[in-house]
Amino acid sequence: MVNAQAPSSCSIDVRVRYAECDPMGVLHHAMHPVYLEMGRTELLRQSGYTYKDIESRGVYLVITRLELRYRSPARYDDLLTIRTTLRRMTHTRIEHHYEIAVGSRVVCEASSTLACVDRDARVQPLPEEILALAGDRAQTDS
Amino acid sequence: MVNAQAPSSCSIDVRVRYAECDPMGVLHHAMHPVYLEMGRTELLRQSGYTYKDIESRGVYLVITRLELRYRSPARYDDLLTIRTTLRRMTHTRIEHHYEIAVGSRVVCEASSTLACVDRDARVQPLPEEILALAGDRAQTDS
Amino acid sequence: MVNAQAPSSCSIDVRVRYAECDPMGVLHHAMHPVYLEMGRTELLRQSGYTYKDIESRGVYLVITRLELRYRSPARYDDLLTIRTTLRRMTHTRIEHHYEIAVGSRVVCEASSTLACVDRDARVQPLPEEILALAGDRAQTDS
Amino acid sequence: MVNAQAPSSCSIDVRVRYAECDPMGVLHHAMHPVYLEMGRTELLRQSGYTYKDIESRGVYLVITRLELRYRSPARYDDLLTIRTTLRRMTHTRIEHHYEIAVGSRVVCEASSTLACVDRDARVQPLPEEILALAGDRAQTDS
Repeated sequence: MVNAQAPSSCSIDVRVRYAECDPMGVLHHAMHPVYLEMGRTELLRQSGYTYKDIESRGVYLVITRLELRYRSPARYDDLLTIRTTLRRMTHTRIEHHYEIAVGSRVVCEASSTLACVDRDARVQPLPEEILALAGDRAQTDS
Repeated sequence: MVNAQAPSSCSIDVRVRYAECDPMGVLHHAMHPVYLEMGRTELLRQSGYTYKDIESRGVYLVITRLELRYRSPARYDDLLTIRTTLRRMTHTRIEHHYEIAVGSRVVCEASSTLACVDRDARVQPLPEEILALAGDRAQTDS
Repeated sequence: MVNAQAPSSCSIDVRVRYAECDPMGVLHHAMHPVYLEMGRTELLRQSGYTYKDIESRGVYLVITRLELRYRSPARYDDLLTIRTTLRRMTHTRIEHHYEIAVGSRVVCEASSTLACVDRDARVQPLPEEILALAGDRAQTDS
Repeated sequence: MVNAQAPSSCSIDVRVRYAECDPMGVLHHAMHPVYLEMGRTELLRQSGYTYKDIESRGVYLVITRLELRYRSPARYDDLLTIRTTLRRMTHTRIEHHYEIAVGSRVVCEASSTLACVDRDARVQPLPEEILALAGDRAQTDS
């Protein structure tokens, strides 16, 4: 359950590339997960960390669940806003929610779960400073 | 609900490309949706149709929902088996289920919903011959 | 031959995405052509046109030649500068030169030729307003 | 200079994916480098080695030069033949030539140079067994 505290979230703008559109002339649906990853990266950066640094310390965040609802098409050269929100954190997992929009029109809603693993893909606890970002959204593992 | 009749399904093998792997050395999670689309394409081909021909008649199948569970990593040069199953069809929608595996190890399970639209992205009924593929998996729209 | 006149050029910054890097941890070499295309798109936009509008009028610019020299690796999260320069224009072709860099370190130098075609891929003359952008870089076809 | 000896070459077939095509309905030009890499991978495999194994020994082959001539469009669902030929090898570099075709129609001709480097991107000599593959195409470094 999400605490009433203001959610930790951020917005970034991404312009749709020609190479990312398909013969229907719309953003191909496999690109949305890439945009979501960019959203997570920037949310972390705004919290004072970079995923690059975290990974250099042997901490890897791998995706275990991804759910997308495609609401309307995005087209070549559209300027999309990706809004990323931290939803919940346990000692080993992080959940995010996302909305991708063109202006006020929603293109896609999505959610994901990341697991913290080591170089050999074994689950390990999230670093303390990442856990601290959760604030009241921290949860005991279920 | 899926009928007891043998499911309409197919398997294809895809070798993981170097360009598709990320700095962790594993298949990037945004590639799985591309593989699922390849699975759907081949399932349709084995039914006697090509998506290319269908699209040339002004019938477009757009994805509206995609859910993925990533079970284990796939790596560069792995030969993956993508098993695609037609789960359910209504007059305007098609649901598939998927399993991606390396040998007996499951890499990913997924499901998707496609909607049938026209060139202007308005929902239209599926062509009769596609509906006929559903057999007992056909459903009235809910 | 390029005229002494100041070249028509522009610079854009692009941050390297995780999904674009390969198991060596560096930007995969197939991404550079995508970045070059982004550079051309922005150079055109700064001239007062969008490729999207041009294409909607039945004018397509297709690539016929691409040459790249990879000088040094780019890595995940690097902020790259893509400098695009219009080199030469004939009635049916456009040549660009590019430099991709991280700070003062050159990552890649490249050049390309585009041909102007219609919807059926037949060569057609460039629109007058695009030809006008060439200034003294305009050339008779050779 | 290439020796008169029969060139070491191989052909693979690749079906064009929907996600790889652009709003013009054709294979996007940034995909061709990915196909060329697949061609090199299979040529090596047919010689009894895998790039995966070579890399696991700390030997990396990085691309330093890539030149492409796009002759005609490839479209969604086309079955392309990629013919890869080893052209020349020095102690630290490998040159390949490529032809991509749909049936007898040539889609693209290309050539590339790879350099052998270590984990820190420093040039190192090619392993003996790879050099042995060159036969009379071996050259002293120039």
